Amino acid sequence: MKKSIGIGLMGLGVVGSGVAGALLEKRDSLAAEVGCPLILRKVLVRDMSKSRPVALEDNVLTTDPKVLMSDPEIDIVVELMGGEHPALEYISQSLQAHRYVVTANKEVMAKHGEELLTTARDSGVAIMFEASVGGGIPLLMPLQQGLLANDISTIYAIINGTTNYILTSMSAEGTGFGEALRKAQELGYAEANAKNDVDGTDATYKLAILASIGFHASVRPQDIYTQGIDSLGEPDFRYAKELGYEIKLLAIGKQNEGSIEVRVHPVFIPVDSLLAKVGGVYNAVQIEGDLFGKLIFYGRGAGSLPTASAVLGDVVALGQVINAAMKGHIPSTQLMTKSIRPIAELETKYYLRLSIADRPGVLAQIAKILGDHDISIASVIQKEADNLTQTAEIVIMTHPAREMYMQQALSEIGNLPVVREICNLIRVEG
Amino acid sequence: MKKSIGIGLMGLGVVGSGVAGALLEKRDSLAAEVGCPLILRKVLVRDMSKSRPVALEDNVLTTDPKVLMSDPEIDIVVELMGGEHPALEYISQSLQAHRYVVTANKEVMAKHGEELLTTARDSGVAIMFEASVGGGIPLLMPLQQGLLANDISTIYAIINGTTNYILTSMSAEGTGFGEALRKAQELGYAEANAKNDVDGTDATYKLAILASIGFHASVRPQDIYTQGIDSLGEPDFRYAKELGYEIKLLAIGKQNEGSIEVRVHPVFIPVDSLLAKVGGVYNAVQIEGDLFGKLIFYGRGAGSLPTASAVLGDVVALGQVINAAMKGHIPSTQLMTKSIRPIAELETKYYLRLSIADRPGVLAQIAKILGDHDISIASVIQKEADNLTQTAEIVIMTHPAREMYMQQALSEIGNLPVVREICNLIRVEG
Repeated sequence: MKKSIGIGLMGLGVVGSGVAGALLEKRDSLAAEVGCPLILRKVLVRDMSKSRPVALEDNVLTTDPKVLMSDPEIDIVVELMGGEHPALEYISQSLQAHRYVVTANKEVMAKHGEELLTTARDSGVAIMFEASVGGGIPLLMPLQQGLLANDISTIYAIINGTTNYILTSMSAEGTGFGEALRKAQELGYAEANAKNDVDGTDATYKLAILASIGFHASVRPQDIYTQGIDSLGEPDFRYAKELGYEIKLLAIGKQNEGSIEVRVHPVFIPVDSLLAKVGGVYNAVQIEGDLFGKLIFYGRGAGSLPTASAVLGDVVALGQVINAAMKGHIPSTQLMTKSIRPIAELETKYYLRLSIADRPGVLAQIAKILGDHDISIASVIQKEADNLTQTAEIVIMTHPAREMYMQQALSEIGNLPVVREICNLIRVEG
Repeated sequence: MKKSIGIGLMGLGVVGSGVAGALLEKRDSLAAEVGCPLILRKVLVRDMSKSRPVALEDNVLTTDPKVLMSDPEIDIVVELMGGEHPALEYISQSLQAHRYVVTANKEVMAKHGEELLTTARDSGVAIMFEASVGGGIPLLMPLQQGLLANDISTIYAIINGTTNYILTSMSAEGTGFGEALRKAQELGYAEANAKNDVDGTDATYKLAILASIGFHASVRPQDIYTQGIDSLGEPDFRYAKELGYEIKLLAIGKQNEGSIEVRVHPVFIPVDSLLAKVGGVYNAVQIEGDLFGKLIFYGRGAGSLPTASAVLGDVVALGQVINAAMKGHIPSTQLMTKSIRPIAELETKYYLRLSIADRPGVLAQIAKILGDHDISIASVIQKEADNLTQTAEIVIMTHPAREMYMQQALSEIGNLPVVREICNLIRVEG
């Protein structure tokens, strides 16, 4: 059993800071999962003097990659620099030095994934890269583990948040491409140079990784037909709507009879499909397998914390492997005793449907009881009465209220002579 | 390194047959993942004489659980009998006999999960139960692995396909509860005795498991407030629609400041939320974590093959653990070289937008070129022309056609003097 597992972090930008921050803040819970603490030993940066959002101990920062890679206390190298070079060389050298590697680098993994997996195997270590596709959405691990009894036939992926944000604006607001791109840039959803997003390159890198893992095949970026979104115009969205479609940039992978089809381009998809409802910067990946049928994974595909979530998932998995090799047992979830709140303490909005006598003043009586129990009414619908039975139906939507008070109020309302029946009480979520 | 890993299967009903069938059919690919073959050694059944959809070798069937549990060649016991007893006793005895266990039994895991996890740990083995919640959707493994750096704050789960089917019918077709239930039973989406589904018991078992794993807490079925769907009436759906909501049976778990809230009951959810769009027998689980933000997992929550997918995922994971302990290395994905189809061979439907001279006979010229290239037109929209420029816009939707032919046709169409511009060509998916 190890005393601790040492982490070397390459890159302290947006994602790197998120990972470093979480490693420090979640130190105890991460240690409980791994079986020993994860210690941030070294962080590779370009400029020592820059001010950092994370408080690191002395001697942790370095500008020399060799210092990090040769540190005997570092077990796992986390590469978050991005770009092809020198990230590729650093990852490769780390693996050759028998360090486990976690990376979020889609370009390196798309172009050189196969050789890096081989280097890792030859060195008796492993490289994990969940964060390289779909940010915080667990995709690669499920494909490599829980789903691997399946033959995957289809991948439909919205995996570039910038273009999905632009397409959502163009569809919802009728804005042109240029204006939608500018708005995305203003809001920070697109970089100043958004070329790699807009022309489909980013989605192509991610599809190369996803298809390689999903189809157990070597799929490289140059195998993928790629077309961006800059040719789309306002009329296309208008016609799409008229015809019952939404326009999305889809990364598509299909496999049948051992042959593969991989492409990234704008598509019309039926407006009532779930993928058509994926709006803004969200990502979604739909996969089809012979056993599970159809699955959709939906979540945030980018950003500091979602990406940190995926990076740390990989770090913990490797930490468990390193530790299990030492102590020879399988980690399993520890359950703790936590207090469980009774339903009476619930606070939520309510829908209440009542059948009442069609007579003046009834609503006032009901409203008074609700008010007495601190329940405030958001809206009321009263339908025309049934003349024959002199009965009316009334629906009340409340603001958030306490379940206990609502149940007390309901019992008093039920006792009102003018209330024929409490038809239903349904809680409102979301 | 083991020569093979022995499987003992308890129960050969709908799911058991799916698992046994896949173990035989996918023998080679599963062996490649695990590192050695998975051999079905014994299958526990109630009646030896019943005819089976799966062809098993001689001496595999037995009616004696002790024969299965004492077989030294069995490494993993797969329990698919369902029900609390005697499944609980068989699982417990198998763990005590140092067998790894995979189960799809939600009732046993909801009521006795904590003690079985302890028994497994004390015996140096493990119990896995991905199939007990959400059928083919990977939920427990992601929560236990890739996502575990997160604190989970909210679980919103549509995890009972029968009730979701009934609610979808009631909402879409205005049918009453009784009629919707009967229809679900006729179609095989509800059992003859659907009490456990309709009254929320099934969803409560699944929430107990999901909340225990998601919140790292001991949550038992009796901790959960439960209310079924049988009180819902046609007016509730009518008002829900009027107010902008959909009605769903939601299993809800919330955690804050170390205290937990768990409940299963019908709720109003906003009609434009993704969960509101989850129709029919599909399941969906939305979770919120401090790092990843919001994630949704969507897929088939029941059925022979989706459940078999989850069971086999667990079996392979345990097989890898058993094998890795012997040979001391980490399994990693093997990439194969597969042929990649060029985009020219794609066959899909197309949306084509053209700017044309507003003159009789233009559509005929375009249609002729498409026809010559074996491209059949599904529909045409021609908008009123711009009098000033004498230009009209025309949109053509095609039936499935070959990309190569479409590109050839497009180049000919572009050369027509009456065609001002090929504005856009977009492929149609789904």
